[in-house]
Amino acid sequence: MKPTHYADYLRLDQLLSIQLPRSCGPDEKAAHDEMLFIIVHQAHELWFKQILHELSDVFNIFRNQTVDEKNIGIAVSRISRITVIQKVLIEHLRILETMTPLDFLEFRDCLIPASGFQSVQFRLLEIGLGLKRDARVQYSQNPYAISFSPEDAAALKAAEESPSLFDLVDKWLERIPFLELDGFNFWESYRGAVNRRFADDRAFVDANTQATAEVRAKQRDEILKTEQHFEALFDEKMHQKLIEAGACRLSFRATNAALFINLYRDQPILHLPFRLLTLLIDMDELFQTWRSQHAHMVHRMIGTKMGTGGSSGHNYLRATAEKYKIFSDLSNLSTFLIPRSVLPELPPEMRKKLGFYFNQYNN
Amino acid sequence: MKPTHYADYLRLDQLLSIQLPRSCGPDEKAAHDEMLFIIVHQAHELWFKQILHELSDVFNIFRNQTVDEKNIGIAVSRISRITVIQKVLIEHLRILETMTPLDFLEFRDCLIPASGFQSVQFRLLEIGLGLKRDARVQYSQNPYAISFSPEDAAALKAAEESPSLFDLVDKWLERIPFLELDGFNFWESYRGAVNRRFADDRAFVDANTQATAEVRAKQRDEILKTEQHFEALFDEKMHQKLIEAGACRLSFRATNAALFINLYRDQPILHLPFRLLTLLIDMDELFQTWRSQHAHMVHRMIGTKMGTGGSSGHNYLRATAEKYKIFSDLSNLSTFLIPRSVLPELPPEMRKKLGFYFNQYNN
Amino acid sequence: MKPTHYADYLRLDQLLSIQLPRSCGPDEKAAHDEMLFIIVHQAHELWFKQILHELSDVFNIFRNQTVDEKNIGIAVSRISRITVIQKVLIEHLRILETMTPLDFLEFRDCLIPASGFQSVQFRLLEIGLGLKRDARVQYSQNPYAISFSPEDAAALKAAEESPSLFDLVDKWLERIPFLELDGFNFWESYRGAVNRRFADDRAFVDANTQATAEVRAKQRDEILKTEQHFEALFDEKMHQKLIEAGACRLSFRATNAALFINLYRDQPILHLPFRLLTLLIDMDELFQTWRSQHAHMVHRMIGTKMGTGGSSGHNYLRATAEKYKIFSDLSNLSTFLIPRSVLPELPPEMRKKLGFYFNQYNN
Amino acid sequence: MKPTHYADYLRLDQLLSIQLPRSCGPDEKAAHDEMLFIIVHQAHELWFKQILHELSDVFNIFRNQTVDEKNIGIAVSRISRITVIQKVLIEHLRILETMTPLDFLEFRDCLIPASGFQSVQFRLLEIGLGLKRDARVQYSQNPYAISFSPEDAAALKAAEESPSLFDLVDKWLERIPFLELDGFNFWESYRGAVNRRFADDRAFVDANTQATAEVRAKQRDEILKTEQHFEALFDEKMHQKLIEAGACRLSFRATNAALFINLYRDQPILHLPFRLLTLLIDMDELFQTWRSQHAHMVHRMIGTKMGTGGSSGHNYLRATAEKYKIFSDLSNLSTFLIPRSVLPELPPEMRKKLGFYFNQYNN
Repeated sequence: MKPTHYADYLRLDQLLSIQLPRSCGPDEKAAHDEMLFIIVHQAHELWFKQILHELSDVFNIFRNQTVDEKNIGIAVSRISRITVIQKVLIEHLRILETMTPLDFLEFRDCLIPASGFQSVQFRLLEIGLGLKRDARVQYSQNPYAISFSPEDAAALKAAEESPSLFDLVDKWLERIPFLELDGFNFWESYRGAVNRRFADDRAFVDANTQATAEVRAKQRDEILKTEQHFEALFDEKMHQKLIEAGACRLSFRATNAALFINLYRDQPILHLPFRLLTLLIDMDELFQTWRSQHAHMVHRMIGTKMGTGGSSGHNYLRATAEKYKIFSDLSNLSTFLIPRSVLPELPPEMRKKLGFYFNQYNN
Repeated sequence: MKPTHYADYLRLDQLLSIQLPRSCGPDEKAAHDEMLFIIVHQAHELWFKQILHELSDVFNIFRNQTVDEKNIGIAVSRISRITVIQKVLIEHLRILETMTPLDFLEFRDCLIPASGFQSVQFRLLEIGLGLKRDARVQYSQNPYAISFSPEDAAALKAAEESPSLFDLVDKWLERIPFLELDGFNFWESYRGAVNRRFADDRAFVDANTQATAEVRAKQRDEILKTEQHFEALFDEKMHQKLIEAGACRLSFRATNAALFINLYRDQPILHLPFRLLTLLIDMDELFQTWRSQHAHMVHRMIGTKMGTGGSSGHNYLRATAEKYKIFSDLSNLSTFLIPRSVLPELPPEMRKKLGFYFNQYNN
Repeated sequence: MKPTHYADYLRLDQLLSIQLPRSCGPDEKAAHDEMLFIIVHQAHELWFKQILHELSDVFNIFRNQTVDEKNIGIAVSRISRITVIQKVLIEHLRILETMTPLDFLEFRDCLIPASGFQSVQFRLLEIGLGLKRDARVQYSQNPYAISFSPEDAAALKAAEESPSLFDLVDKWLERIPFLELDGFNFWESYRGAVNRRFADDRAFVDANTQATAEVRAKQRDEILKTEQHFEALFDEKMHQKLIEAGACRLSFRATNAALFINLYRDQPILHLPFRLLTLLIDMDELFQTWRSQHAHMVHRMIGTKMGTGGSSGHNYLRATAEKYKIFSDLSNLSTFLIPRSVLPELPPEMRKKLGFYFNQYNN
Repeated sequence: MKPTHYADYLRLDQLLSIQLPRSCGPDEKAAHDEMLFIIVHQAHELWFKQILHELSDVFNIFRNQTVDEKNIGIAVSRISRITVIQKVLIEHLRILETMTPLDFLEFRDCLIPASGFQSVQFRLLEIGLGLKRDARVQYSQNPYAISFSPEDAAALKAAEESPSLFDLVDKWLERIPFLELDGFNFWESYRGAVNRRFADDRAFVDANTQATAEVRAKQRDEILKTEQHFEALFDEKMHQKLIEAGACRLSFRATNAALFINLYRDQPILHLPFRLLTLLIDMDELFQTWRSQHAHMVHRMIGTKMGTGGSSGHNYLRATAEKYKIFSDLSNLSTFLIPRSVLPELPPEMRKKLGFYFNQYNN
């Protein structure tokens, strides 16, 4: 085998010869900033590939019927890496912003009708996380798939038909065994503690005589709605109705498990599951940040003009930033958290099961 | 005079003795994370003071009838510093996110009914930039001023009655002299160039037979709306109507000047004015980013609960992030930019006036 | 109890009234940028307070003879928060850099002879992490303690006489029990694996005929030195000699434990200890980055002039950045890592002990 | 012409097919993290290409005998973009740090003897900025050029023989005309002002009775050295000697011009030149930060082992971070700045020449 050389290993001859500006006029000189435009997009695609690489490994882990704790650790490190990459992708927008609108205009017309919407990897990413086709913001005049080659369209369709990260996490949470161990009446005492907090909230509103009757009525309404959400934690049918109404997406049992993990995350065996849930929220939020800053940037670049692909430009992008949240059920769980001081204590036998073997063995 | 000592200079005895947690129970031990909560807010207030300090200097510069070019340079460096501070403030949210929802609950109830809405400096900042009272999102049950002491309410009222940064920039742009020099028919040839671009856009839509008739109608509509905005650049009455309809806020003449600066920013005398306009957009966008990430964080922290001050929590914050943009008229100008290649050339006499004296003297 | 108000809770009246510039001339107007100088230092001191608050909690955890696994989790989250704060402190330097050298000169003379060296909290921080007085770079003309008030000097002395984070981690690692369980001959097989790697390295050097004899001799020397370090892992006396020679600082047993944690971090009970060790390296490195960027900034600000307190300015600061590393023994461990594929497998009984109770119970 | 499609425009088929791990064993499965290793390096190379693209444009600007002010503006925006890219490159190291040392070991041996030192683009970058071959830290056993193919070695040699950015800036500064206009005796009064400051410094040291005689002698020495540097500003032969001694590199006349720009940067015509000088320092510092954090990362990854290419690993990298500063003469100028209050005022005729034509015309 030939000794490895840096340039061969990285295929630099190919990598550095595929920046081909289209703005070359008769004088053969391209607009200076088109190089930047190409490279910033190519860099995005490289990182999309890396994110998909990590995600695919996470999929493999969660596809197993029983997920080894060791593998939860691996999933955590994979998703953690994705969030670091996402932060750097957001910084890529800072680089693109060094191009002024006037400089962009020098080559913009040469790009029509190409569009970032045609990035297959980005679509795979969205689908992989759990974005459903019917949740998509209507883009431009085209039916969704027309922007893609038949092969790419098929790949996207296949991805849409496979379980997404959302689906796999949902199932994994459903399988978590601790909730029903040993007749532990956790849910009842927890329910009492939360209900006392609702009563306090209601008293607070009632006592607030500075507010108008109308405002207080509205606030009582809000509390009622939250209570209903809460009741759905104990009533599978009610939860099902919320799902059907589009108010949440995570299944009844998975929601219960996720809440349990949040409340008892200090128990050793729940430590990594808690980090995993937190990272899913992080990842979701970072995509949202990227989307929203991308929308800002496009606004600065082209004002209210249409995108090169014929989309409505930054309004379309802003709408996706608002709507494409996958794991908001997990953030919403914070609504039902209660302080550790009023949290029902786990029975010793249960604590033992959630701990390390070594400690049991020694004590 | 006593020799300066670090601790005296910075009043460390006072600075480091005003972190007083309220969560102290009978055991005298406060919740561990309340210290973080206090310090992150105090740090914000220190930086708000610094931002107001910079802003106040910028106000002084623009209050003068004639703004010296040297002072534009100073205004640019002041606002540029504000944007650097804003970036660091956004990072402060990363620190606060290391507090988990459960840790926050340990002391949250002690804070009721205090609320970040009561930050006078932040309100002064919003008002100073140009946020009008009637553009504010309705907050909680209280009329706007009730959260403040009489002195603070008076200070806020005074600020609302003084010209804001928006007002001052508007007036400064109106006074810029270059637009009418020497019968230069810039606007006419520029108008022609833009109109040719609209015709191209319309042809593009008409030719796009893949789109449904309905979609194409909608797109033609969009182009028409943009054209009307564009026509308003030449017709003061039309522009006035757009202002009245809330579609824009910058005056007719100021809009013209801002566009001229954008188009001819390569001329030496327009270099700093262009940077100023760019920085105003940056500053606006960074506040929006801070607001939107603040809203995310609150969502993670309390879910869909009410805020401690009785607001609707993260929904209120998200609405402010959407709505409180002051300088979007400046970003919107990108809609009307045209490539340098079709930009009308300035006549030599005009170019001379926008240049350095030294060059004229030598050539 | 009076209802909490934002301004009272944060003591804003005091916080915002202690920015007192000293550059006020007869016209009562201070240099514009002195406000920034004060606020950036006050912000640093607030965050130093927070870091010391976290550190003090970590001290409490490790002072116990037996450290509960749950508490390792808490220590991890405390130190993790410190690293997030450190990143934001580094960004504070970006704010200070918006002050140009000429602007600094407007008030620099008023500061003499104050100096950042007089920050008691920063010294407490250095000492708390484990910086020894005799490892300090000689600063200026003054004996170390003369810059401080008697009370502060006493506090620093007391801190120096208490166990530092380094000491506590050293002891905690020494107490870790797993190394000697059940006659597992881990160390022997591990030693063999590493020695095979040294042999490979040596062969690589010998075969490299492109290198001069001199260069190859030097490289063989390097390998020999590494081997001696490695041998010290098995020979307490040899290790002791390295400590005495200043080549390392972590005790024999602690070094062994840290290496074991690095190698078998996938075992559930070692997961958090591994994160802790990683975070100690992170924290160390971030302080170094802060120091080195602080040194750069001072260089830009004052060139090669002396500091206001009489230090040699940026050279002094650069030397501290180079030398003040506390946990480099932990980074150095990477030298002795071996690929998982050649890592001796843990015997089943041992794996069981390092795992969760739940899994044993079920399988 | 075929309508542009995103995937064709960016050559995604090629871009996404050149990540070819070498760690594939008989089971065809590569080490998971080798993909990251490849992509992070490819991303670096893409950005190096972009930096070289910007730099090459800057070279074209400064190669002209007379540099148009408009072009200074372009050079400023090119270098400013480079600094934004550099910041993002530093963040790339954060991504690489998510790979643990143990994960790296899974494929490290497959890379031998490739090495980052073989990056031709990075060498071109260093040379383009102004790094001289004899200023390089001795790397490994090989003569410098042996790591490159004959074509690459020739390209590097050609680059070394062309003027670097340092050379071009040096010449441009030398040509700046303002220093000798109209018998303005700026240098004499400036010299007096600085000398008064040296006298103050010396008095400060003499009065500091807390210091030992030895320390004070050392400090007087430092002041003397600074004075000699200062005197060299007025004495071309003395300056030449400093250059020969390696104490500075910028020519006599260029140093004078750079100082003048720093002192009178508020004059309109000097505004962009001042930003340019500042950005050169920024760029230098950011490369240094990248180098030094790269060295940290390598230390964590391989401890004190040799690099894959046979270098001495992180010690080599740390040495380059220390030594490879190109524009430190510009930072050192801060040593000789004086407060605006004692700065000699420019005569009106000179101020006029440094201002805008428009203002002269109107006033």
